[in-house]
Amino acid sequence: MFNYKLLKEEKDTGARLGKLYTEHGVFETPIFMPVGTKATVKTLENNEIKEVSDGLILGNTYHLWLQPGDDIVKEQGGIRGFMKWDQALLTDSGGYQVFSLSDNRTITEEGVEFRHHKSGERLFMRPEDSIHIQNNLGADIIMSFDECPPFDADYNYMKQSVERTTRWAKRGKKAHQKPDKQALFGIVQGGPFKELRHLSAQSLIDMDFDGYSIGGLSVGETKTEMYNVLDDLKDVLPKQKPRYLMGVGTPDDIIEGVIRGIDMFDCVNPTRLARHGSAMTSRGRVRIKNKVFENDHSVLDDNCDCKVCQTYTKSYLRHLFKANEHLGPRLISYHNLYFLKTLTQNIRQAIKTDTLLKFKEEFFNKYYNTAK
Amino acid sequence: MFNYKLLKEEKDTGARLGKLYTEHGVFETPIFMPVGTKATVKTLENNEIKEVSDGLILGNTYHLWLQPGDDIVKEQGGIRGFMKWDQALLTDSGGYQVFSLSDNRTITEEGVEFRHHKSGERLFMRPEDSIHIQNNLGADIIMSFDECPPFDADYNYMKQSVERTTRWAKRGKKAHQKPDKQALFGIVQGGPFKELRHLSAQSLIDMDFDGYSIGGLSVGETKTEMYNVLDDLKDVLPKQKPRYLMGVGTPDDIIEGVIRGIDMFDCVNPTRLARHGSAMTSRGRVRIKNKVFENDHSVLDDNCDCKVCQTYTKSYLRHLFKANEHLGPRLISYHNLYFLKTLTQNIRQAIKTDTLLKFKEEFFNKYYNTAK
Repeated sequence: MFNYKLLKEEKDTGARLGKLYTEHGVFETPIFMPVGTKATVKTLENNEIKEVSDGLILGNTYHLWLQPGDDIVKEQGGIRGFMKWDQALLTDSGGYQVFSLSDNRTITEEGVEFRHHKSGERLFMRPEDSIHIQNNLGADIIMSFDECPPFDADYNYMKQSVERTTRWAKRGKKAHQKPDKQALFGIVQGGPFKELRHLSAQSLIDMDFDGYSIGGLSVGETKTEMYNVLDDLKDVLPKQKPRYLMGVGTPDDIIEGVIRGIDMFDCVNPTRLARHGSAMTSRGRVRIKNKVFENDHSVLDDNCDCKVCQTYTKSYLRHLFKANEHLGPRLISYHNLYFLKTLTQNIRQAIKTDTLLKFKEEFFNKYYNTAK
Repeated sequence: MFNYKLLKEEKDTGARLGKLYTEHGVFETPIFMPVGTKATVKTLENNEIKEVSDGLILGNTYHLWLQPGDDIVKEQGGIRGFMKWDQALLTDSGGYQVFSLSDNRTITEEGVEFRHHKSGERLFMRPEDSIHIQNNLGADIIMSFDECPPFDADYNYMKQSVERTTRWAKRGKKAHQKPDKQALFGIVQGGPFKELRHLSAQSLIDMDFDGYSIGGLSVGETKTEMYNVLDDLKDVLPKQKPRYLMGVGTPDDIIEGVIRGIDMFDCVNPTRLARHGSAMTSRGRVRIKNKVFENDHSVLDDNCDCKVCQTYTKSYLRHLFKANEHLGPRLISYHNLYFLKTLTQNIRQAIKTDTLLKFKEEFFNKYYNTAK
């Protein structure tokens, strides 16, 4: 069922225009996928998620495994049935959360033992467990279980880790019960080390995954460090498979990622920023709680045609935040996701017309020079 | 502009079917009005508020006066322009909040001096201030500024208070700048004392208000005490004016209120309960966080045709609450308001067909005997 077609490479940058075929939708790439960690894109309902996405969203394996449990989700038809989402879905492997959220973790060849980040309960996750849970969650695209070491881990540790992640990927691929229904991606690790990134990528390519994710980024490294890793991998990953840069989703990183060959992005940023009253706009970040907006009758972004920017004043949005009203985060979440949907639409258009560098320059000029 | 027509009195109970005419909509009564305290019905957007109401909602003068300020709201066209609500609106006088939320209040003939419930700032509200703020907020229906004494205040205090509230009502009526645009209701006080309720009502009737509110109830008294007050007032209030029971909105109180001649209700209950995971259903209260719903694939209320009951399982709704997701309170707020909208629709139908007592019996049988 799953397929990817490379339609075009942009003239100046080689940025890729493609199509992802899944059982629950066909999607043009580059694409941004809103994050629905716990089977809900925070604050939004499905009709709104459709309006602010291209129809492909992400769920988090770790969270849904622990609450309500993947067995309960499976009984209701997987995440899609559980949350009544009738379009496409991707799940991560839980690897990132095991390493970022849990306490007292012990990594062995077998898997990872760790404590629940809230209850303290002792838990164990092996690559086979991650795939089994993801089979239950039933997404269209699932991920190999990987170790996500700190970006500044030393070379020797990183090498051992990459080799183990490769062995885990092999075990996970073998454990996958629904290869016809669920595409499985391998995750390239290796920190800042070009040689290890190549080693990781090549080992995964040898196993022939449906797509390749780039992990271990957006974990505190500089943007230059991240872009270097993408540059290192650009010509290594196979052209006829999709490339997914995990956890990355600021406007500048999306543009720079696309220029470096990335097809898929996800990030909690748009909804997390929204909860703190920060809006992404064509003129940069707007921090809506700022006193200057108290009586500002203009909309968040007059270049945006989302329902929030067609309706509400900054003054009203600020009021909702000052009054601690749920509607505030909800409206800005909607806008921020719509903003990234529009951005990736514009990027695809710029690839089609071979004008991506011009688009980038114009976007950045506005984005960085006029922010309040 | 404002008008009320009594269309019918139900055969057995005298319950009133009527029509409220406002500049922004015509409404059949009895009606339930969702509360949008701070220019937002908590968690919901305007398109949803339309679906779960008859188009008449309430805003709170006290809260909007303090945040963002009635001058800011006025500049954007009043509450309706501020929150982009294109239907009808009612504001309270702020009296109830001055007495229930503020500290260190001092009541004089002039008005009430008190401290802001959060900042501690010293504030003063006179009847003229309340009306002036409400003129700025621009609702279709506004309220006189009243003192809302505890239900168990002694007779002498209550008598003084009622007489002062009457004098305040007179001052407020005089101060009202937009009598053609905004209907002004008087508020009947008097606690449990029939003589004082009659005194209060008669004094207000003599001033000829556009409608009459019954205040000082739902403040901790028993249901019997509340119903007694309504019985005492039933034949005193003029038939050709609407009667509004302030702050009351449980299903049983709405039914009992209608039977005692009430036309209008409002209450924070449906949205407040929702935030705590409590759903109003035809079979009574459902506490969705309960463990029994963990894997329950049924909907909240199979007699309800709201979008929540057409879509989501109890299991999913419970998960949203266990996972602290905003969507949980949002979906149950939607359902609870829809439930009260449907209830009042059914009540109006029962008045039309002279079957209100039968409706009441059937409703209560189900509501009280089958709750989980």
